[in-house]
Amino acid sequence: MGCALHSAAAGETTPPSCLSRVPVFGQLRAEEVALLHSVMRSRRFSKGETVFREGDCSDSLFVLSRGVIKLTKLEASGKEHIIRLLFPGDFFGQFSLLQEKPHYASAAAADDADVCVIHREDFLEVLRRSPETAARFMTALSGQLEEADSWAAVLTLLETGRRLAKMLLYFRQKSAPGADEFTLPISKKELAGVIGATPETLSRKLGQLSADGIAAVSGRRITILNEKELCRLAGEEQ
Amino acid sequence: MGCALHSAAAGETTPPSCLSRVPVFGQLRAEEVALLHSVMRSRRFSKGETVFREGDCSDSLFVLSRGVIKLTKLEASGKEHIIRLLFPGDFFGQFSLLQEKPHYASAAAADDADVCVIHREDFLEVLRRSPETAARFMTALSGQLEEADSWAAVLTLLETGRRLAKMLLYFRQKSAPGADEFTLPISKKELAGVIGATPETLSRKLGQLSADGIAAVSGRRITILNEKELCRLAGEEQ
Repeated sequence: MGCALHSAAAGETTPPSCLSRVPVFGQLRAEEVALLHSVMRSRRFSKGETVFREGDCSDSLFVLSRGVIKLTKLEASGKEHIIRLLFPGDFFGQFSLLQEKPHYASAAAADDADVCVIHREDFLEVLRRSPETAARFMTALSGQLEEADSWAAVLTLLETGRRLAKMLLYFRQKSAPGADEFTLPISKKELAGVIGATPETLSRKLGQLSADGIAAVSGRRITILNEKELCRLAGEEQ
Repeated sequence: MGCALHSAAAGETTPPSCLSRVPVFGQLRAEEVALLHSVMRSRRFSKGETVFREGDCSDSLFVLSRGVIKLTKLEASGKEHIIRLLFPGDFFGQFSLLQEKPHYASAAAADDADVCVIHREDFLEVLRRSPETAARFMTALSGQLEEADSWAAVLTLLETGRRLAKMLLYFRQKSAPGADEFTLPISKKELAGVIGATPETLSRKLGQLSADGIAAVSGRRITILNEKELCRLAGEEQ
């Protein structure tokens, strides 16, 4: 089940701010920054554009510096569903890179996105030359695992209303921490899929949040009107 | 949000077969094996026993060599729910170890379990001395992330019946690959929580699988009678 590697696509530019935008690289020493800077390329993906497809192999590590990436899997029925969202600072693609196996999920830009790309050989060379960067990458991977587990923790909540409230608070924390207003990073249809509800149920639940004065919904724009009550619905203490 | 570390509990013995049972260590060179062997301890946990609690800090990396570990989170209501299961070869506890933050979930033995324990300083020293082991650990972490994502992919399936079929196939693959019979690694009540169903719904769905001649259920023992149909229910092609 190995991987015949093919190179990353063309259209790469030199990195604008890959390193400064990615928290995990924030505490690197000057020589580590220089080392990484020399091997990173930045690529821009338009909304809907695919970074890689499930089953493909790739020879690069991707670090999201701006925008939102959705990881999706195709069901046998041909229906695609989101398994996780990635936000700035998150890594992806390391599975194919490290295990030399095909990607187990597809990655596509949920919104316009800037992605830092490090080619396999460069990445492995940086790890060899800088144990500090290796340790930092390991810590970042461990953080990604926590994110995936937090995501799963929301999905296992029994009530749809609770899953929705949790997911709204999660999206707010990821896109506009502390703010009352934020934009859903995915469509409502996709959100319905994520919380395991039909679009009709989601629509009804959002309508209920509006009617109860908890959140106002206008398209993808969400305004939290009663945070305390939303947290209570999500089963969180304040 | 740092961690005041406390040492792992007493009751440790020298490792019986930590290294041989854990696939990720299977391809290490002799000197790497010796290095790891010298710093690993094995601990046995009885069914139900806690390895660490959410909010605790610990100074060790844990590698499961036998049994099943459940990662759980406590809801504000005091209800505990499973976010993921760990099977032999899986790592856990690296979050607190690498990030020096409290564990975001609790870990407990779902069944009698043997766990290899590596103390923080020993582990970091092995990583410093052996870049190959570091690379292998990174690959293992990446594999864990894939597991967490596969788990989430099951949870986002819309129909309870499909989630149940997928979870049964997943448990079979983890505990007895290719066999017709296997034992559920968790109680039926816990399984209901995992697939986001009430115990009554789960009971009805299992009864339906029996009535349809797809799987026989006796306590926690599951016998797959019609694998093709179970795969079809799970939305998998064969």
